[in-house]
Amino acid sequence: MTEATPQPKKILVVTAHPDRRSLNSTLTAFAVDHLRAAGHEVQISDLYAMKWRAALDADDFPDHPADERLAVMAASERATLAERLAPEIAAEQEKVRWSDAVVLQFPMWWFSVPAIMKGWIDRVFTAGFGYGPALPPPYSEGALAGRRALLSVTMGARPTAFSDRGIHGPLGDVLYPLQHGLFWFAGMEPLEPFGLFDSNELPAERFATAQRAYAERLDRLFTDEPVPFRSLVGGDYDHDMRLLPGVEAPGTTGLDLHVRPRG
Amino acid sequence: MTEATPQPKKILVVTAHPDRRSLNSTLTAFAVDHLRAAGHEVQISDLYAMKWRAALDADDFPDHPADERLAVMAASERATLAERLAPEIAAEQEKVRWSDAVVLQFPMWWFSVPAIMKGWIDRVFTAGFGYGPALPPPYSEGALAGRRALLSVTMGARPTAFSDRGIHGPLGDVLYPLQHGLFWFAGMEPLEPFGLFDSNELPAERFATAQRAYAERLDRLFTDEPVPFRSLVGGDYDHDMRLLPGVEAPGTTGLDLHVRPRG
Repeated sequence: MTEATPQPKKILVVTAHPDRRSLNSTLTAFAVDHLRAAGHEVQISDLYAMKWRAALDADDFPDHPADERLAVMAASERATLAERLAPEIAAEQEKVRWSDAVVLQFPMWWFSVPAIMKGWIDRVFTAGFGYGPALPPPYSEGALAGRRALLSVTMGARPTAFSDRGIHGPLGDVLYPLQHGLFWFAGMEPLEPFGLFDSNELPAERFATAQRAYAERLDRLFTDEPVPFRSLVGGDYDHDMRLLPGVEAPGTTGLDLHVRPRG
Repeated sequence: MTEATPQPKKILVVTAHPDRRSLNSTLTAFAVDHLRAAGHEVQISDLYAMKWRAALDADDFPDHPADERLAVMAASERATLAERLAPEIAAEQEKVRWSDAVVLQFPMWWFSVPAIMKGWIDRVFTAGFGYGPALPPPYSEGALAGRRALLSVTMGARPTAFSDRGIHGPLGDVLYPLQHGLFWFAGMEPLEPFGLFDSNELPAERFATAQRAYAERLDRLFTDEPVPFRSLVGGDYDHDMRLLPGVEAPGTTGLDLHVRPRG
């Protein structure tokens, strides 16, 4: 072989669609096959197939005394540090810890993930796991550093509606709560999302094109530059977590303030 | 009486916290009492108490043939127009239709609503109810026009972290998928969110102050100016749903592009 073989990696694919015949299920199967064919190890969390319980409650923390008010962050951290989380949560955390990259595959519903996937996020990214006092600060090479993160999202809308002047807002802004608020908060390295637009009517030819584009993104999962969000500990922010005056390139505004100038 | 009595209105309060002793439950009870004392009618959807099922699936649409792939938007619209939705969804839609205002009370988890509330949104705002071909266009005085919408959200963070240069992003940007993407998309009139910050440690005095501030916001539920999001049909957008060049005030950027200049 003349080309360097990419190092095999470990990838967790989390997927959420109620129908196994859906576009999202097809894309999940495609990604898993493609990644395995490239020599990687893959685990899958198919949330509907797993009947994942979406609603965080006291059962997440089996040792939590029933007569004590549930302060979620405190209970979450106590149970995590004591390794006394509900077993299905511990199992998902183990998959994330095992992984070198996490891919979330989902249909955009109301400009975010489906509720069952929000429930995976709410319940798995406990205090003491994704963030917390005993861990490095958020928005830095922190709790889950060294892991790539890719959102792969299908949308009924056209791309123009998610463009810089599009009415839905720029895709990166709409997904900021996940890209920056979840992944980068926990120290993971989010890549530019992979979006499949106009997905309600998808002729075979356009699907084939999309699949090729997705394959290319998966091939570059460990070589693409992550979105260069600013580090909280890099000297760009004051003690109240505000960006210091003047550190941005002239004309930078909105949520782009929190991205380092590229190139 | 010398002052005009406010017209009694109908208000739906939707709330999501797993513990009835939580701050969010306390704020919900306070809002309900306060609104009723002012003469309004109030209904409550306490999602944890109702054991609301979060994950949308084919059971939402009882007539959907099991051997047919579930295309969510199409199935959702068909079931809605045929008045054949799961009964718990129809009941929630009836509450929204009944209401003059909807208040969502929730703790911010991962920069959005808890999964159980996302599941209320995913399942209740069906095609044919919140939007759809047979209804007025989205982002206009559309499907659910004439209804106020208020997010009341508790956050562990300090307000500076959600300020214009705050690392979490401006609160309005973080909540844009709900304010603009849900409420305004469906034609409702979102007010500025009511935020209670630094909520993990809340001394009695600060709680009392917050409660007074919340009471004032509730008193102005029908008189405050809604966030003046631009209408899709008002001539500001092109056919690809992009804001036309130059309609914004000079210097306006980011998601503020979609807000009409005030004052």
